[in-house]
Amino acid sequence: MHIGFLGLGNMGGPMARNLLRAGHSLTVFDLSSAAVAGLVEAGAQAATSPAALAQTDVTVIITMLPAASHVKGVYLGENGLLANVRADVLLIDSSTIDPMSAREVAAAAAKHGNPMIDAPVSGGTGGAVTGTLTFMVGGSDADFDQAQPILAAMGKNIVLCGASGNGQAAKVANNMLLGISMIGVSEAMSLGVSLGVDAKVMAGIINTSSGRCWSSDTYNPFPGTMDNVPSARGYSGGFGTDLMLKDLGLATEAAKQARQPVLLGAAAQQLYQTFSQQGHGELDFSAIINLYRKQEACA
Amino acid sequence: MHIGFLGLGNMGGPMARNLLRAGHSLTVFDLSSAAVAGLVEAGAQAATSPAALAQTDVTVIITMLPAASHVKGVYLGENGLLANVRADVLLIDSSTIDPMSAREVAAAAAKHGNPMIDAPVSGGTGGAVTGTLTFMVGGSDADFDQAQPILAAMGKNIVLCGASGNGQAAKVANNMLLGISMIGVSEAMSLGVSLGVDAKVMAGIINTSSGRCWSSDTYNPFPGTMDNVPSARGYSGGFGTDLMLKDLGLATEAAKQARQPVLLGAAAQQLYQTFSQQGHGELDFSAIINLYRKQEACA
Amino acid sequence: MHIGFLGLGNMGGPMARNLLRAGHSLTVFDLSSAAVAGLVEAGAQAATSPAALAQTDVTVIITMLPAASHVKGVYLGENGLLANVRADVLLIDSSTIDPMSAREVAAAAAKHGNPMIDAPVSGGTGGAVTGTLTFMVGGSDADFDQAQPILAAMGKNIVLCGASGNGQAAKVANNMLLGISMIGVSEAMSLGVSLGVDAKVMAGIINTSSGRCWSSDTYNPFPGTMDNVPSARGYSGGFGTDLMLKDLGLATEAAKQARQPVLLGAAAQQLYQTFSQQGHGELDFSAIINLYRKQEACA
Amino acid sequence: MHIGFLGLGNMGGPMARNLLRAGHSLTVFDLSSAAVAGLVEAGAQAATSPAALAQTDVTVIITMLPAASHVKGVYLGENGLLANVRADVLLIDSSTIDPMSAREVAAAAAKHGNPMIDAPVSGGTGGAVTGTLTFMVGGSDADFDQAQPILAAMGKNIVLCGASGNGQAAKVANNMLLGISMIGVSEAMSLGVSLGVDAKVMAGIINTSSGRCWSSDTYNPFPGTMDNVPSARGYSGGFGTDLMLKDLGLATEAAKQARQPVLLGAAAQQLYQTFSQQGHGELDFSAIINLYRKQEACA
Repeated sequence: MHIGFLGLGNMGGPMARNLLRAGHSLTVFDLSSAAVAGLVEAGAQAATSPAALAQTDVTVIITMLPAASHVKGVYLGENGLLANVRADVLLIDSSTIDPMSAREVAAAAAKHGNPMIDAPVSGGTGGAVTGTLTFMVGGSDADFDQAQPILAAMGKNIVLCGASGNGQAAKVANNMLLGISMIGVSEAMSLGVSLGVDAKVMAGIINTSSGRCWSSDTYNPFPGTMDNVPSARGYSGGFGTDLMLKDLGLATEAAKQARQPVLLGAAAQQLYQTFSQQGHGELDFSAIINLYRKQEACA
Repeated sequence: MHIGFLGLGNMGGPMARNLLRAGHSLTVFDLSSAAVAGLVEAGAQAATSPAALAQTDVTVIITMLPAASHVKGVYLGENGLLANVRADVLLIDSSTIDPMSAREVAAAAAKHGNPMIDAPVSGGTGGAVTGTLTFMVGGSDADFDQAQPILAAMGKNIVLCGASGNGQAAKVANNMLLGISMIGVSEAMSLGVSLGVDAKVMAGIINTSSGRCWSSDTYNPFPGTMDNVPSARGYSGGFGTDLMLKDLGLATEAAKQARQPVLLGAAAQQLYQTFSQQGHGELDFSAIINLYRKQEACA
Repeated sequence: MHIGFLGLGNMGGPMARNLLRAGHSLTVFDLSSAAVAGLVEAGAQAATSPAALAQTDVTVIITMLPAASHVKGVYLGENGLLANVRADVLLIDSSTIDPMSAREVAAAAAKHGNPMIDAPVSGGTGGAVTGTLTFMVGGSDADFDQAQPILAAMGKNIVLCGASGNGQAAKVANNMLLGISMIGVSEAMSLGVSLGVDAKVMAGIINTSSGRCWSSDTYNPFPGTMDNVPSARGYSGGFGTDLMLKDLGLATEAAKQARQPVLLGAAAQQLYQTFSQQGHGELDFSAIINLYRKQEACA
Repeated sequence: MHIGFLGLGNMGGPMARNLLRAGHSLTVFDLSSAAVAGLVEAGAQAATSPAALAQTDVTVIITMLPAASHVKGVYLGENGLLANVRADVLLIDSSTIDPMSAREVAAAAAKHGNPMIDAPVSGGTGGAVTGTLTFMVGGSDADFDQAQPILAAMGKNIVLCGASGNGQAAKVANNMLLGISMIGVSEAMSLGVSLGVDAKVMAGIINTSSGRCWSSDTYNPFPGTMDNVPSARGYSGGFGTDLMLKDLGLATEAAKQARQPVLLGAAAQQLYQTFSQQGHGELDFSAIINLYRKQEACA
């Protein structure tokens, strides 16, 4: 299949490579010529603009962009995809943006005769490289069925969450919970340890009790409790605090529009913002535990 | 073995019965004569006061009391256990109280020549009846080894958390995390649903993603997502909101004494307090989701 | 002076009347023909569109619109003001919007050769009628000097807050503090009363102590402590909960863009949202105290 | 009049001196012999213990102690005041403690035939020295009338807040509001400044608008906005963060016992705790603004 791919960053780059590896023909675009060159070397063709890409004979276009403003620009702009693409070409946006913007773009696509799904991912750059991402998809059953085999080249878990925008809704709701849980684990671990419990013992209790959660049993923020997680290597790598902050911003914005209270979600956003303001936005988000521990506060 | 047991309430009653069932000889005390009568019928002997119980030839005394004030009264009072018990009798307090109070009583016991452990439980009245409680134990290795076979008659998971008070510390830290997680799941589920995602789909996404936790995959608060949990039966049964509130009160009090910030823990306490003040303290704590959902707020 | 005025709602209507009263010539526009008819009766001329209004010989245009999307549409749209107005006409936006949007529109105006200030107001519909509004102005000194005598017909307190957008910044920061203070007073009054202190005594203590604030000494939320405030009349009139919610949404959005933590500001937003979701969005914002008082929760 | 005074610290010392200055005869006690010596030099007599002091012919005893545990010890202990004092001696506790403990001690005093009032103060060490404290009194009208002239030697504002414990209740409620307001002002000032508004302009807007409060117009936390306040001198002097933390601990504890939600009060407590844990507990509480400002976070 001939697929167009826009946005070849840390996530989009390896995703595009997996499509090539699966035997698809690829035309790509990115503002970074280095990123484009890398893909061309791997067998893709380069387009000189979104419009030019849209005017090829691709049957599917996938976008992986930083924020809603980019997505709106690329799809709805004067020289954007919708103004240039043939009707019926399937549009897949894998960017993480707010559900309302996703619905706005999908509605414009529908008006133009293009099926469109939102398909944000989880699994990080690691999952993008190994092709084991989770896709949370919003769109019709038919569009999901069409997209499924293509997404399967890049991920192993592809879930339909309902109509347009629901992929984004499911992702921001899950990630808001993740942001809350990580702080909850940070507080519980810090409290147990400050009361005299050994950190490994505390983690063991939690992991076999009602406090059990992914942030505790798979990604524990307390140094020394687990190997091969960011807390074991000074919080390098992983999912950055500022990326968590972006997702919590999307979640609270979506909540505001839906008039839905999210008290702990908003508190979590502010705590990561506080930690980021103190200069730690690049650290993995589990480093938030340092906000709770004396010796680390001003390291 | 001849064991003394004080406190025959919803938890203590079935725990004492399991000790009888395991073949132990039991002398019991409770302020409720009905509770005592039930145990006597099951084979226990009755003592007329804590002092009288302490003066028998028991080699172990177990207490299961509502709060630290009761524990201090029963152990440290003029006619209390320490004033009357032989040295060397092993003292086991399974009440849930703050770690500092637990350490204060254990220190007094040590002065009197009595080994003592704190051994609060999780698992609820169901676990008390079926003998499948988890015991979180604070005390020395030797005292833990002595207590272990006795506790095994009442629970299946018996964990040493370190020195005196650490059983309480581990429990309040875990339960604080549980209280936070349940609100986090309530917010994430409510947000997803208010954005248009089906509740079962949303729960499925969370349970296979980084938001996964006990509150979501084992005890989901959103009605219709699971069977055999309080949310499936109008939030009856389970672990009451006011009991969660008690544990969060212990956690924030312990945090205050340890000078440990617990921002989400304190927020969770206040949210359950708000919900309780609105008249819902008797409902299972997962009913906190109703604070977030329009149609249920004033039902 | 010939002035154009767009947006004749609860605030804009009386503001425009005060301009007429001060002897100015007025051309007005609103989507509601009834609102326009009212002003015409009072002596204004009607324009049939923003473009038509812009093409008259007005030397100043004032806008008073509900949200940033309307402001952007009216100023930047294809048939909007900037596309039709003469250079040098002074543009005054009195809408309450986020500072970044205000700066975006002012920059577009500058490019077109039009001086522009943001001049949001406080003082409510009462102040609009009596011409006693406070204007918080963002713009250059020269533009402020030009606008000052015009604004003086509608308000009595006209403050320059710095460059473009700073009027909005000052307003959202002040109103965020107001939203926090009102909840703080609600909690302190409720706590004092629940501990046994008479409400009037408690208010008296606060008003002569370090807790003194406008929310306590001028607008106390506890019924029976003051006359002529919303709490004395079932929370009717005043500044609606949903309007406070809008301002807190602007404040937290501006904080997000500035990467500035506002932990209590975000908590306040969520508490008003919770109260609004329970069906009380139309009540004066001081009714938030009912979230803290048993007997009122589900009235 | 012959008055007994226990507790000669930063507050009690100058208060006792003001009683001497007013012509009263004084017998004092403190664990610090240096503190006692200072008062003896000023004309007081020394007692060797609380019991010895109680056995003199004092007609009034005033206590100024650090916490409820000390108050209970001094009044209720075996060698304490109640066990040794004549009936009818008026007891005045000016310590700041929780209302429930105040009521417990007053009830014990009543049983023993002693009138007792709680009379916590505000005004700080400065007010103690200059005799301009505010006394918030809980007790009967008759006891208040008897105490009034004595308190007038130490303060200028003496307010009856209702029955026993209400002085404490009024104080903790007011100070909780103060703790919230100071954070609210810190957030609003930081937000305004981070959006580009000059700090003095921002303070001016707040002080003439609905955000006006003591924390803004009398004790502004933003450096450079006011003279003669802690923010003008590196946050030295004033009311320490750890003292605010103590009062917020009393407020949330009293709220817990009264089953009264205080969401922002609890959040404020946690934020001061976070700031204290970072090593700033000795700074004036208005330094909390540094939690919100990048350049100061790790100074």
